Amino acid sequence: MTNHGNNLDPWYGHYADRTAGLAASEVRALFAVASRPEVVSLAGGMPFVSALPKELVKAAFDRVMCDQGAVALQYGSGQGLPALREHILEVMALEGIRAGVDDIVVTTGSQHALELVTKLFINPGDVVLAEGPSYVTALTVFKSFQAEVSHVAMDDHGLIPESLRESIARVRAAGKTIKFLYTVPTFSNPAGVTLSWERRLEIVEICRTSGILVLEDNPYGLLYFEGQPPHAMRSVEEDGVIYLGTFSKTLAPGFRLGWALAPHAIREKLILANEAAVLSPSSLTQHIVAEYLSSSDWRGQIGTFRGVYRERRDAMLTALDDYLPDLSWTHPAGGFYVWVSLPENLDSKSMLPRAVKELVAYTPGTAFYADGNGRNKMRLSFCYPTPDFIREGIRRLSTVINGELELLTTFSQTAPLPVQRPASSMSNPPANLG
Amino acid sequence: MTNHGNNLDPWYGHYADRTAGLAASEVRALFAVASRPEVVSLAGGMPFVSALPKELVKAAFDRVMCDQGAVALQYGSGQGLPALREHILEVMALEGIRAGVDDIVVTTGSQHALELVTKLFINPGDVVLAEGPSYVTALTVFKSFQAEVSHVAMDDHGLIPESLRESIARVRAAGKTIKFLYTVPTFSNPAGVTLSWERRLEIVEICRTSGILVLEDNPYGLLYFEGQPPHAMRSVEEDGVIYLGTFSKTLAPGFRLGWALAPHAIREKLILANEAAVLSPSSLTQHIVAEYLSSSDWRGQIGTFRGVYRERRDAMLTALDDYLPDLSWTHPAGGFYVWVSLPENLDSKSMLPRAVKELVAYTPGTAFYADGNGRNKMRLSFCYPTPDFIREGIRRLSTVINGELELLTTFSQTAPLPVQRPASSMSNPPANLG
Repeated sequence: MTNHGNNLDPWYGHYADRTAGLAASEVRALFAVASRPEVVSLAGGMPFVSALPKELVKAAFDRVMCDQGAVALQYGSGQGLPALREHILEVMALEGIRAGVDDIVVTTGSQHALELVTKLFINPGDVVLAEGPSYVTALTVFKSFQAEVSHVAMDDHGLIPESLRESIARVRAAGKTIKFLYTVPTFSNPAGVTLSWERRLEIVEICRTSGILVLEDNPYGLLYFEGQPPHAMRSVEEDGVIYLGTFSKTLAPGFRLGWALAPHAIREKLILANEAAVLSPSSLTQHIVAEYLSSSDWRGQIGTFRGVYRERRDAMLTALDDYLPDLSWTHPAGGFYVWVSLPENLDSKSMLPRAVKELVAYTPGTAFYADGNGRNKMRLSFCYPTPDFIREGIRRLSTVINGELELLTTFSQTAPLPVQRPASSMSNPPANLG
Repeated sequence: MTNHGNNLDPWYGHYADRTAGLAASEVRALFAVASRPEVVSLAGGMPFVSALPKELVKAAFDRVMCDQGAVALQYGSGQGLPALREHILEVMALEGIRAGVDDIVVTTGSQHALELVTKLFINPGDVVLAEGPSYVTALTVFKSFQAEVSHVAMDDHGLIPESLRESIARVRAAGKTIKFLYTVPTFSNPAGVTLSWERRLEIVEICRTSGILVLEDNPYGLLYFEGQPPHAMRSVEEDGVIYLGTFSKTLAPGFRLGWALAPHAIREKLILANEAAVLSPSSLTQHIVAEYLSSSDWRGQIGTFRGVYRERRDAMLTALDDYLPDLSWTHPAGGFYVWVSLPENLDSKSMLPRAVKELVAYTPGTAFYADGNGRNKMRLSFCYPTPDFIREGIRRLSTVINGELELLTTFSQTAPLPVQRPASSMSNPPANLG
């Protein structure tokens, strides 16, 4: 028995083994920094909800309370409101997905779908294959269930099929069990790249023949800036894909509504896991969103969001061209993020305190890897600040980066280049960076 | 590797070991039955939300959208809205709890707090001590993290301290690790009994000296029918109690808002686990509830609920006296439930199809035990149906019970009494019981 506490926590010895993977993420700590008004935050992933007319939400709420108030205030079902699931089918049809209303499980944001799928599949030590880099809070969830994450290389066209084959072979040769491939194939977070259509087909085929489930996370697909987004991987493979969707980016995160579209047997287990975790997602927010989708021009509203984010993407790419022409970065065709590569000898994490001092914030690349990679990478978000602020943020960032490079050059004239810088105290930056 | 599926589920061999504990609960199946209008359902635990004036919710929503729309539609923090946490302190003060606003973590209903606490503490094989009988979906959560539940006996005054001591000694003698005691001390679900003040002190002391955390779940405390409810166990012990509260019964479940009040180090881990699971609880519903609490007579509204449920409790106890005078049952001083003991040779689970045929539903006692106990018990809910329906439901129930007893008497005159009846197909009653 380990019933022994310490001076700081009398319950120290009581926690489950899985809590070893729970630590404050770099992105979480940055929320505090980013909230100071003088800082241009290119760090968070907050959608620009002010582009959603509040009257539309109010009108939907009023109709719900008038027509179905008692039901909307009551417990719902663990699978979610049927009327909302009908509308979700319409949303997914825009990306080529055909499914039935019974195939959907509504969740408390797609984040909770991610948590529930992980709870259903991961034994301690099981392997999750994931893009390198990957969405930071997905990595947190996998760790919290003691999964081992093995990153698969990607380039400007997304996951590299040959790297996936190699990863599968290597992990299995080590005697480990792969449970699923986690991917954000369209306008990925954080890389801002999109898996090509040919690769989608190839990766689905690799996973099918290898008996590996695909967890396709698609929060950004409808926020495309040019032409149309590629169809979802789920559009070509039903039995081997769990698809996650959300209303956080096409409507608003405050509703906390997302969904999983899963093969029959998995979906049944997801419903049970959802009921155990929260009994049901919020009936009230489900009713409001269902009413909004049935009575508003929601496609037009998504078009408005696309326009807002396209303008901000353009502002960011132009500013990068103008202020940091020597660096390289991705050119997202949709979504929220640009992924920037710094010179090899720069460390984005240890540079962050200096950036915040210069009143600009970003997310260091290491946050998006489970294996310590990404040291000279950073994620820049163009979703929340206005174009002018984005440009000013990039200008400030260029000052910081150029200052660091200068320092390194000076340093390298008198001493060898330091390969490993001291770890910064990322776990609580606001206290140190005032 | 176990990458082998079967004809029904190609991913059969992929699930985590913990999914072995996931199965459709008896209460879940009953939702389908209870929703048919001709059935008097004494089975569910749905609060009577029609007693909440919709105008109050509408007014709160309007003010939120007018004053703080963009914030309410955005992501929130993993700990929850500070303004809401301030009000939660006022709510808990009614039951003698003193705490700080930083000690609270807002969750997606108190159900999610239960899930998160279990995720934080339970390794497979760890033991949870729990009242016998216990809240059914708590048992589901514990099983879903592979906890072993050891029931502690209770009587009309709640948990029996001597039984708790014996349980602790027995479990530890078997070399097992006890992680916490789960209890609903006030107006318990399903037993409808309340832990006396003397026993609260004694049980807190037993747990303190034994190094066992107390998980105090208190959804019903403010729904008292006589005098005042006893103060919470948390009011006398800070470091050893995690207290769970909810707005589902004092306001409405559709908001999906509850909370955990936990010692410092545990609370920090709860916030991280909450962020991993859902990023944040719904900002929108948090803002609405905070606004409602700051501008409405919420204490008066809880008084209205008390009046509604008191009348229904009285209707149920009177009807039991009138129609089933030979049985015994608990006399709840608050909450939603009466726990009925049938004659030893009756089996409430196998009797249920007959009851539904007679258009009355209840929850069989075995649902509330992890160990197969409760065969001749049943939970009756008085929260949702009107007094007239409650009386009619009990009348129908008496017909069923008397019919069963008659059958058994006839049977026992020609053959020995069957001790084990064939298992009924509880997992899907509606299809069989039309």
